[in-house]
Amino acid sequence: MTSISFRNDYSEGAHPHILERLIQTNLQQEEGYGEDNFCIRAKNLILQKLGTQKSDIHFVSGGTQANLIFISSVLKPYESVIACTTGHIVVHETGAIEATGHKINTVQTNDGKLTPSDIQPVLDFHTDEHMVKPRLVYISNSTETGSIYSKVELTALSEFCREKKLLLYMDGARLASALTSKYNDLVLADLAILTDAFYIGGTKNGALIGEAIVINNQDLTKNFRYSIKQKGALLAKGRILGIQFLELFENELFFELGKKANMLAEQLSEGIENFGYQLISPTVSNQVFPVLPNNVIEKLSQKFGFYIWSKIDEQHSSIRLVTSWASKEESVDLLIKELQKIRSGK
Amino acid sequence: MTSISFRNDYSEGAHPHILERLIQTNLQQEEGYGEDNFCIRAKNLILQKLGTQKSDIHFVSGGTQANLIFISSVLKPYESVIACTTGHIVVHETGAIEATGHKINTVQTNDGKLTPSDIQPVLDFHTDEHMVKPRLVYISNSTETGSIYSKVELTALSEFCREKKLLLYMDGARLASALTSKYNDLVLADLAILTDAFYIGGTKNGALIGEAIVINNQDLTKNFRYSIKQKGALLAKGRILGIQFLELFENELFFELGKKANMLAEQLSEGIENFGYQLISPTVSNQVFPVLPNNVIEKLSQKFGFYIWSKIDEQHSSIRLVTSWASKEESVDLLIKELQKIRSGK
Amino acid sequence: MTSISFRNDYSEGAHPHILERLIQTNLQQEEGYGEDNFCIRAKNLILQKLGTQKSDIHFVSGGTQANLIFISSVLKPYESVIACTTGHIVVHETGAIEATGHKINTVQTNDGKLTPSDIQPVLDFHTDEHMVKPRLVYISNSTETGSIYSKVELTALSEFCREKKLLLYMDGARLASALTSKYNDLVLADLAILTDAFYIGGTKNGALIGEAIVINNQDLTKNFRYSIKQKGALLAKGRILGIQFLELFENELFFELGKKANMLAEQLSEGIENFGYQLISPTVSNQVFPVLPNNVIEKLSQKFGFYIWSKIDEQHSSIRLVTSWASKEESVDLLIKELQKIRSGK
Amino acid sequence: MTSISFRNDYSEGAHPHILERLIQTNLQQEEGYGEDNFCIRAKNLILQKLGTQKSDIHFVSGGTQANLIFISSVLKPYESVIACTTGHIVVHETGAIEATGHKINTVQTNDGKLTPSDIQPVLDFHTDEHMVKPRLVYISNSTETGSIYSKVELTALSEFCREKKLLLYMDGARLASALTSKYNDLVLADLAILTDAFYIGGTKNGALIGEAIVINNQDLTKNFRYSIKQKGALLAKGRILGIQFLELFENELFFELGKKANMLAEQLSEGIENFGYQLISPTVSNQVFPVLPNNVIEKLSQKFGFYIWSKIDEQHSSIRLVTSWASKEESVDLLIKELQKIRSGK
Repeated sequence: MTSISFRNDYSEGAHPHILERLIQTNLQQEEGYGEDNFCIRAKNLILQKLGTQKSDIHFVSGGTQANLIFISSVLKPYESVIACTTGHIVVHETGAIEATGHKINTVQTNDGKLTPSDIQPVLDFHTDEHMVKPRLVYISNSTETGSIYSKVELTALSEFCREKKLLLYMDGARLASALTSKYNDLVLADLAILTDAFYIGGTKNGALIGEAIVINNQDLTKNFRYSIKQKGALLAKGRILGIQFLELFENELFFELGKKANMLAEQLSEGIENFGYQLISPTVSNQVFPVLPNNVIEKLSQKFGFYIWSKIDEQHSSIRLVTSWASKEESVDLLIKELQKIRSGK
Repeated sequence: MTSISFRNDYSEGAHPHILERLIQTNLQQEEGYGEDNFCIRAKNLILQKLGTQKSDIHFVSGGTQANLIFISSVLKPYESVIACTTGHIVVHETGAIEATGHKINTVQTNDGKLTPSDIQPVLDFHTDEHMVKPRLVYISNSTETGSIYSKVELTALSEFCREKKLLLYMDGARLASALTSKYNDLVLADLAILTDAFYIGGTKNGALIGEAIVINNQDLTKNFRYSIKQKGALLAKGRILGIQFLELFENELFFELGKKANMLAEQLSEGIENFGYQLISPTVSNQVFPVLPNNVIEKLSQKFGFYIWSKIDEQHSSIRLVTSWASKEESVDLLIKELQKIRSGK
Repeated sequence: MTSISFRNDYSEGAHPHILERLIQTNLQQEEGYGEDNFCIRAKNLILQKLGTQKSDIHFVSGGTQANLIFISSVLKPYESVIACTTGHIVVHETGAIEATGHKINTVQTNDGKLTPSDIQPVLDFHTDEHMVKPRLVYISNSTETGSIYSKVELTALSEFCREKKLLLYMDGARLASALTSKYNDLVLADLAILTDAFYIGGTKNGALIGEAIVINNQDLTKNFRYSIKQKGALLAKGRILGIQFLELFENELFFELGKKANMLAEQLSEGIENFGYQLISPTVSNQVFPVLPNNVIEKLSQKFGFYIWSKIDEQHSSIRLVTSWASKEESVDLLIKELQKIRSGK
Repeated sequence: MTSISFRNDYSEGAHPHILERLIQTNLQQEEGYGEDNFCIRAKNLILQKLGTQKSDIHFVSGGTQANLIFISSVLKPYESVIACTTGHIVVHETGAIEATGHKINTVQTNDGKLTPSDIQPVLDFHTDEHMVKPRLVYISNSTETGSIYSKVELTALSEFCREKKLLLYMDGARLASALTSKYNDLVLADLAILTDAFYIGGTKNGALIGEAIVINNQDLTKNFRYSIKQKGALLAKGRILGIQFLELFENELFFELGKKANMLAEQLSEGIENFGYQLISPTVSNQVFPVLPNNVIEKLSQKFGFYIWSKIDEQHSSIRLVTSWASKEESVDLLIKELQKIRSGK
C-alpha cells in the first residue's frame, strides 16, 4: 500500500503504549485462558468505569466473534434477531449468526439506527410457531453508516425492549468513536444500565486485537466461558487481551484515541464540504461519506485508499473515508489539498 | 502465580524477537484480514519449507479455532471424524466439532496415536445411512500424551486413508516439539505430502497467538476464507499473525524453540527417573508424565505448578510437567532439587 | 369447526382411494425405511411422468422437511439461498433453513415470483468472503400468493441460474394446482429439465402426508438418504408414502384433484367478482384473494373459515380463500349466497 | 420379501382399528398442525393414563425426530447428553443429535441400561469450560438389546439425576413391549413422575407413524411447538397422529399389542432354548437374541428374515429376532419347526 489509506480503522498495528506493556510483562508467568492477572485487573477497571460490580466481562479477539458467541449463547434455537438491513451481522459477517442457527429479521432504516417503531411491526408480524420468535435487538454504536445513538434514543429503545421482553445488544466495534463524538451524551455507565449486553471494540481503537464483551443482564452470564471456548475464542494466552484493555482504560487512552479519530474525521468533512460537496449523512463519528463526481473519485484514488460506498447517479458516487487513532493530520491535509488540485484541474 | 509453572507451554508471552518485529512494523499501513504483506511473505516462507507451491496457508488465532474451521469446512453434514478418545477435539474443546454438526467416532488407544488397524473396525461398523459416514481422521503430533508419529507410522496411516477415501488431518498445536524430538524422522515437507491438511502451532511455541492451517489437498481449499470469516476467525489486523510466523520461520526460530522445550523436558525426565520414579510413557517431546507418591506431589505442588494427570493407585498418581521455549534450565534444576529435598524428608 | 372451512387445503384426510389402498396392502410384510415395493413402484411411475430415468426420488412427510433436508444437503456452510420475501421458507418455517446454518437473501417482488433481474442485484452485492455466497434459488409453484410460473418464465430463470452457477429449487407444496391451472403450460417433464430439484406436494393434494423430492441434478444425489435419516425424516414404515404416491399417480388422480381445486377456486372467484369486489391478484390456482369491506368479512366469518390476508385501508381487507380436492361445490355456492345475503343486508 | 420377517417391528402397516378410524373420520374438516379435536382428545386420554394434567404432549412422526427435537430444545449449545454406547441416538440416527450441535458422552454397559454409577464418572471427568457440560441422560425402555428398567432401577436413576441437576429422558420406541413385559413393574404414571420427558412409541406398536412426546418437567415445555415446526415435524394433517393415539389408548389397544409381541417373543425364545441354544441375554420384551451355529443361521435365513447381531466365535453368531403385534403365532411355530428340521439335518 503505497497510497495513504482511509479505507478503515485497522490499517496499522497497536498504540505504542500497548506494545510497550506487552514487552514489559512478556516473561511473567500467568494463568492461561483469560484467568491471568491482567485480565482480572482490566475487568475491574472497566467495571469501575461502568459504575457497577454486576456486569460480567469477557475478552475475545474480534467483533464477528463477539457477536456470534454472545447472540448464540442467549437465544433458543427458534429465536431470532432484529437488526437494520445495514447491520454488520446482516451484511458483513458471512452469515455467522445464521451459521449458529438463527434468523435475522431485518428492518430498512435511513440512518442505520433502530427505533421502537421500526421494531413493533416485526413483533406484530410474528404471531405463532410457524414463524421465528424475535428475541434480541441488535444495534451498532456508532453505526455502520457513522451515526450514533443519543441517550434519549437509547433509553426509549431500552424501555421498549424490556416491555416487549426483547434483549438489547449493542455492537461496539466503534464504540470509542461514538462515545467521544461531540454529539454524544452517553457514557459507558449508561450502557451498563440500558443494554443487556454490548461489546467495547479494541481492534478499531488502538488494540492489536480485542473486544470486551460486557454482559449486564445477569440472567445471561451463566457458563458464558463454555460458549467462548466452544466457538474457538478462548485464547490460551488470554493475557494479551487483558494487557491491551488494561492499557486502554488505565489512562483514558481509549477515549483519547476515539476523540482523535473523530477530530480528524471532522477536519476531513469540513475540508470536503468547503468545496461545496455534499455528505450523504452528517459526520458525527470517524466515518465521512462525501458525494463526489466519479472523475474526482478516480483521481483521488490514485493517491488515497478508500471504498466506493454507493452510486448516487450516473456522474456521482459516495465514498467512505475512515479515520482512526493512527491517522495523521498531515494525511488529512494532503487529501484536502489533492481535492483542491483535482478541482483546479491540475 | 508465585510458584514456577510447568502447567503448560503458554504461561509466558511471545519470544522477544516477535515483539520486536511487531514494534518495528507497527505503523506501516497494511491491508486488513490477512491480505497484508507480512502474511503473504510468511506464507511464501512456509511454502518454501514445505517444498511445494501448491499448499494453501491460512493463519488463525488458536488451535480449537483451526480444528473447528477446517473440519467443518470439509465435511458434509452426515460425515464424521475418527479420533482417539484422548484427542484434543474429543475431550478439551467443549464439543466444538459437534457444535458444527459432526459426530466424532472415538477409538481407545494406548499411546494417543491412531493406526490403520484402529480405524478399520470403525469403517466396518458404519455400513449404511442409519449411521454417520466416517470421513476424516484426526491425529495430533505430538499427541496429547506426548508421543510422536514416525515417518513409517504416518506413511502407513496416510496410505490407508487414501485407499479408504478418508481425509487425514493433523493437529499441530505442539508440532514444533514433535518435529524437533530426537526420536523424530519427519520434516515439514513430509506433512505436505502425507496429510490432507495440518496446522502449525504458534501459540505453544513462541507466538502470542497464531496457528497456520496448511491445506495440501487442493480439493479442500476453495472458498476457505469464507469459512474463516463465518466462524469469527478472520482478524482485522491479520498482519499480527503474518508477522509472527515470518519471525518464527525466517531464522529457524520455530525449530530452535521446539528443541529447547524438548531438551528441558529430557532434563526433567532424567532427573526424575534418577530418583527411581517411573514415567507412564517415555519422554519424547515436551511433556513429562512421572508417577509419584501422593505426598511427594502434595509437597512439590507448593513450589511448582503442574496438573495431576491420573490416579495410579491409592498412594500414587501421575502428574504432567510441560516445558516450553520460555522455561528456564534453572527452574528444571530447582524442581529436581526440590524433589531431592522432599525425598530426604527435609 | 362447525363452520365450512376455506382456511387451507389440508382440513380433511386423504382421498378415499388412498385409504382403500392402505387397507388392501396393510398386512403385507415390507422392507422398512422407504425400501419397500410400493416406494419403488411409485418412484418408477413418477420417473415415467418425468420422462427420464435419471432423477432421484425420495419421499418425506412434509414440505418444511423437504425444504430443509434438500437445501441443507447441497449447500456449503457459507452458502446462502435467494428467495422472495413471501417465500414459505422465509416466513412460515420458523427459521428452519437458518437452523441448518444458512442465510436466506430475500428479494421483494409483487407477485411472489423471481426473475433473473430480481436475482442479479443479489449476486452483484455479494462480492467477497465477508458476505455469504448465494448458491441456491428457491421458488414456489404455485406461489404463496397463488401465482404460477409460465414455461417461458421458468426457462429464463433456469438458464440464468445455470449461467450463474446457481442451483434452482422449486417448492411444489401446491404443484398440482399449478400444473393444472388453465393458465399453465408446464408439465412435470419440464421441471425435470429446468430445475435442479423440486418436490411434488402430496399433503395439500389428497395424501395424508407426503412429498416427493425429485433431484434432477445428479451431482446432488449422493448419499441423500443419510441427510433424510439425520433430519429424522426416514419413516420406518416408508411404505405409507409409497402407497400414497402410487395411488396419486397411477390414474392421474394427482392431476384430477388439482383440477378440481382450481375449478372451485375459479367459481368462488367469479362469484365474488360478480358482486363487484376486486381481487388483489387474478385467480390462477386454488387460492382466491378478494378485497372486502371489513363488516362483510366479519359477517362472512361467522359461517366460513378463512384467514385475513392483509389490511387494504381503514374499511377494507383482503382475505384468503383456499379450495382443495375435498372442497364441495355446495360450499362454494353457500359462500356466494351468504355474500349475497350480507350485501342485501339481511 | 417372500420369506417371513422377524427383522423388526415395523414390517406391516397399522392395526386394522386404526385404519378403520382413519376412514370414519376422513372427511371431517379439522384444524391443521395438531390443533384438531383428535389430537386434543388423544392428549387428554393419555394424560388420564399418566394420572396428571400437568404433562405436555406432542405428536410427531418418528423416533429419531422425537429424540432430536426434544433434546435440542432443552440443551444449551455447550451441554451434552450421556448415553450407553448401544443407545439408538449414539449408533443409529446418523449423528442426528450432533447435527443439532450436541456431543454425546458415551458409557459402555453390559445390558444397555444406565445406572448412577455409570454416570458419576462422566460427571467427575467434566469439570470445566474446556469440556462440554453433561446435562441430559438418555435411556431407552425397552433398550436396544431388549432389556427393561425396573421401578427400583428407574427410581434410583431419577433421584440421582435430580440430585445432579441432570435431565432424564426416555426413548420409548418400544415402550409398549417394556410396560407389558411380565418382568415389568412400571406403569405410565410412574414415567410421568420419574422422567423429565419420554416418548410413547406408536410406529413399532400398531400405528402407521407416530410417537407421543410427553414432557413432564414444566420448565421444558415453553414454546415447544416452535421446535417441532422448525425441525419440519409439525404435520399439516396432524389429525392422523391424534386419530392413531386415540385408537391406541381408547381400549387399551396399545398394551394389548405390546403384550402380544412379548408373548410371541417368549414362545420363540422358549422354542429355541429347548434345542439347547443359549441366548445372549434373557428374553424380557419383544426381542430375542439366540446364539446359533453359523450354518444353522445360513439355512434359517433362507426362509426367515432377521439380522445377524454379533459374531460370537468362528462357528457361532447371535441373531436378532423381533416380534410385533402383527407377527403370527403360526410364523413362530414355522421358525421353530424349521430349526428342528435344520438340526435333524433334513
